[in-house]
Amino acid sequence: RISGERLWDSLMDMAKCGPGIAGGNNRQTLTDADAEGRRLFQSWCEAAGCTMGLDTMGNMFARREGDDPGLDPIYMGSHLDTQPTGGKYDGVLGVLGGLEVLRTLNDAGIRTRRPIVLTNWTNEEGTRYAPAMLASGVFAGIHDQDYAYDRVDADGKRFGDELKRIGFVGDEPVGARRIHAMFELHIEQGPILEAEGKEIGVVTHGQGLWWLEVRLTGRDAHTGSTPMAMRVNAGLGMARIIELVHRVAMDHQPDAVGAVGQANVWPNSRNVIPGRAVFTIDIRSPHQAKLDSMRAIIEAEAPKIAAELGLGIEIEPVGHFDPVTFDPALAQSVRDAADRLGYSRRDIVSGAGHDACWINRVAPTVMIMCPCKDGLSHNEAEEITPDWAAKGTDVLLHAVLDAAEI
Amino acid sequence: RISGERLWDSLMDMAKCGPGIAGGNNRQTLTDADAEGRRLFQSWCEAAGCTMGLDTMGNMFARREGDDPGLDPIYMGSHLDTQPTGGKYDGVLGVLGGLEVLRTLNDAGIRTRRPIVLTNWTNEEGTRYAPAMLASGVFAGIHDQDYAYDRVDADGKRFGDELKRIGFVGDEPVGARRIHAMFELHIEQGPILEAEGKEIGVVTHGQGLWWLEVRLTGRDAHTGSTPMAMRVNAGLGMARIIELVHRVAMDHQPDAVGAVGQANVWPNSRNVIPGRAVFTIDIRSPHQAKLDSMRAIIEAEAPKIAAELGLGIEIEPVGHFDPVTFDPALAQSVRDAADRLGYSRRDIVSGAGHDACWINRVAPTVMIMCPCKDGLSHNEAEEITPDWAAKGTDVLLHAVLDAAEI
Ligand SMILES: NC(=O)NCCC(=O)O
Ligand SMILES: NC(=O)NCCC(=O)O
Repeated sequence: RISGERLWDSLMDMAKCGPGIAGGNNRQTLTDADAEGRRLFQSWCEAAGCTMGLDTMGNMFARREGDDPGLDPIYMGSHLDTQPTGGKYDGVLGVLGGLEVLRTLNDAGIRTRRPIVLTNWTNEEGTRYAPAMLASGVFAGIHDQDYAYDRVDADGKRFGDELKRIGFVGDEPVGARRIHAMFELHIEQGPILEAEGKEIGVVTHGQGLWWLEVRLTGRDAHTGSTPMAMRVNAGLGMARIIELVHRVAMDHQPDAVGAVGQANVWPNSRNVIPGRAVFTIDIRSPHQAKLDSMRAIIEAEAPKIAAELGLGIEIEPVGHFDPVTFDPALAQSVRDAADRLGYSRRDIVSGAGHDACWINRVAPTVMIMCPCKDGLSHNEAEEITPDWAAKGTDVLLHAVLDAAEI
Repeated sequence: RISGERLWDSLMDMAKCGPGIAGGNNRQTLTDADAEGRRLFQSWCEAAGCTMGLDTMGNMFARREGDDPGLDPIYMGSHLDTQPTGGKYDGVLGVLGGLEVLRTLNDAGIRTRRPIVLTNWTNEEGTRYAPAMLASGVFAGIHDQDYAYDRVDADGKRFGDELKRIGFVGDEPVGARRIHAMFELHIEQGPILEAEGKEIGVVTHGQGLWWLEVRLTGRDAHTGSTPMAMRVNAGLGMARIIELVHRVAMDHQPDAVGAVGQANVWPNSRNVIPGRAVFTIDIRSPHQAKLDSMRAIIEAEAPKIAAELGLGIEIEPVGHFDPVTFDPALAQSVRDAADRLGYSRRDIVSGAGHDACWINRVAPTVMIMCPCKDGLSHNEAEEITPDWAAKGTDVLLHAVLDAAEI
């Protein structure tokens, strides 16, 4: 078993990089805080005897050599970047849980035939740069690296420039690595495990997603002196499309969600009818048919809403993944590990996207989940117990050891 | 008659201070661009032989002495500050039209019994600091100066600090001046004069207004892994209240308008259900009963919308004026001036708020309007013709001369 205390201490130390304003973290990708977290992670890995690889997307790979270095390694990992008002565990547990696995192996003097590689994937969250899981997506061949480098944040700063600025452009080409199996430990970010009192979620599937960026063009005009009939109000169009997204998600219950998280109007002045609105629709379902249906309805209805108000509309997909089925054999190995350790478990569908969803396209992959309080995530108040963290990491240790062959 | 060419040249020179991104201006109050515009205005006034007074709210008063300096002066003026994406004429025409009146009197060697004072009122627009017409409101005793100084902008910068920073805190106590009569020339900002082919609007009334800032509190949560039933979505609440405001305004037609111009959600991330939304409702009517009714319905319905979604709600009035009736005798003097000059005219209600609305509380006041293209204002594309500007300024000259007693 791993050391729950050491794991917890590392989680708390990492949380000092890019502290939030309400107890959580703001360690958005490619910021100075991200660089600080990366350096801390690197120092810990090197102290644990690993060599650090870095690819041209800034993905970090800490390698613990195997007895048979020529064999394809076992991968673990997740991401250290956070939401602007994110929690201390989303992503971080999967990285530092992996580190705790390596430290435990070292302490116990356990050697494995296969090398073990612990990864920190760049820009999983997708807040500063859409889409989410950007660097694992390039690794898996979903996106071109040029596309990734050319993403811009809200201030117009390019991904490629910011990666360079923080000093984390490596020499290694992205996606060159062979992966025997990949395990991602993550908090559930939903309410099911806690509600049912289960300690371990065996993630068999992941929801599919579409992010649709909507840009409405109306006409800036005075809120006081412009008659109602002359208005071309992009803010009103945005409001109606936010309601549409909600209704479409409700109409596809169960197993479907939809919301608008990012919403901006211009010039954003109290006495100016907004002439422009830009916002992103997030719709998800584990069922391909539902996901397709939601997108089709929104793409049919939103232009009608715009036309009624005289608004111009553009809808651009800025993020997408299909529903995912993780590797059944690896899922079984996670079930076996949990059973061996005497931890309660259930199969579960991931509501969020994860780096594992992309890596699953190029290598056998599975995820392990632990509960989180009140299902709350993407919130600074995100919380887990040290016991949940330790048990999830114990299962990671056992599953990885099975795959890495002692 | 005034010199239309000189007036137009001054308008274009002022537009070089704080240029916009689409041909208009971004000269928001108490910015460096505002300071630049103020300095240019001051140099012009001094060159025209005026002395410059400055009060503790940064209101600027250029005085042309009268033959009887003890008499209460005639005031003209408006504001030089603009919206973030504002036009070149909103406010500016009233100030530089006044300057052109002074220059014309100088050229013609005309003396008046009463002094004439040309004013640039601070923060008319209300974008950076709510409420609008802040400094004329303090002048008229509507707001305390302390209240005004403590207003903060979106970056948390205090009005009082920014006024000091740009170097425009005067010694003169606010509101100490006696005003015999005040004239404000302004573009209509609406479509009526142009549509009816009238050159002059005689402003007999102004709409009343409420600005209601709404703050919704929900819970930041993951857009993917949070079931629909567990969401407390502040963005959805905002959308529904934007629609409510629109419906209430439509239900009060004619002579009522309503919109939300400023709208923000937090953390404004594509995959986070907004836990907070802050936005401002702008409702207006020339009829007190309609204005009261709109406010009452919104204040009754918005909390129900919030409650249905589980959201906390606060509604705070951040701007208000009652419908205004301008001075009938001064309005008649404007009609007479237009008739004397042979310019077509009609009586009109101002859709926007103006500094004149506050000054009307403490002195006889009236407004003169000229048409603007397509009724468009609070838009960089705001446009007027040199002929409209000149005719409005001619009427200002004649009305002011009548009041100032040659
Ligand atoms: N796990 C997680 O929050 N990933 C971010 C991508 C998503 O929105 O699902
Ligand atoms: N004239 C003008 O645009 N004033 C700003 C205050 C308002 O919103 O009416």
